[in-house]
Amino acid sequence: MGRTLERVGDTWSLMILRDALQGVSKFDQFQKSLGVAPNILTQRLAALVEAGFLERRPYQDRPVRHEYVPTDLGRDFAPVLTALMAFGNRHFAAEGIASHMVEAATGLPAEPVVVDRRTGKPIGAPDYIYAAGPAAGLEVLARVALLAEKRGARLGEV
Amino acid sequence: MGRTLERVGDTWSLMILRDALQGVSKFDQFQKSLGVAPNILTQRLAALVEAGFLERRPYQDRPVRHEYVPTDLGRDFAPVLTALMAFGNRHFAAEGIASHMVEAATGLPAEPVVVDRRTGKPIGAPDYIYAAGPAAGLEVLARVALLAEKRGARLGEV
Repeated sequence: MGRTLERVGDTWSLMILRDALQGVSKFDQFQKSLGVAPNILTQRLAALVEAGFLERRPYQDRPVRHEYVPTDLGRDFAPVLTALMAFGNRHFAAEGIASHMVEAATGLPAEPVVVDRRTGKPIGAPDYIYAAGPAAGLEVLARVALLAEKRGARLGEV
Repeated sequence: MGRTLERVGDTWSLMILRDALQGVSKFDQFQKSLGVAPNILTQRLAALVEAGFLERRPYQDRPVRHEYVPTDLGRDFAPVLTALMAFGNRHFAAEGIASHMVEAATGLPAEPVVVDRRTGKPIGAPDYIYAAGPAAGLEVLARVALLAEKRGARLGEV
């Protein structure tokens, strides 16, 4: 998680990526859509290209102009943004919802929920737990042990 | 989205919240789990309480000690973190997965996917599109119009 945030954990980067995933691709389109300063936009686009979320490619010869399109990696990030947008709309859209995902066929708003592809069940306690993986270090093992102890204590309380 | 990130868009805040959602609650537990400096931890916990994601409550009288537990708002953020962790594990865990969500009953790793509660379908193009909501301002309306135009152009290419 930390490594993901190092790459896209900045508000502008996430908003640029959200727009790019929706089909915005040209510099002036991003600028207009986000109201972002050109120097910040240039820097964030370069960082997203560098991190592998966007690909920069020419779309015009004279003068040369580039557009920015999501890579496979960038597209795979879409569910995170969908979950994040939905959370913001649920809680911080005091004056109403400005934008959201809707089903194209019906226009009905999507209600995003994170489920396990295998079981179809929402991923949350108590059905799903945080566990150490094969490359867990001492810090993770200590955390997992602490959490198992807490779960045991809660079960004991019941 | 911007408003959510203003509140929790910092790597430490997200990692503290991840731990809190898993049952970590005491100051020294967070410190040990994350290897975070005490002054940073104090500041981030206060900010998460201020933003309404955590509740601070006493668990001991002499001396008074407090623990930090997720509020309803904090718990509702869990799916965002689940999607974020899964993305990080898919792409940035070069040396293997340190930690992940598993089904408690079977121990099998969860494969998080964001679906629409109503239809069960994954929320992604072309089934789902970004649309203006009731409180859309000029900026959002312009973006939605631009995207609709791009979709039309793509359909025209086919």
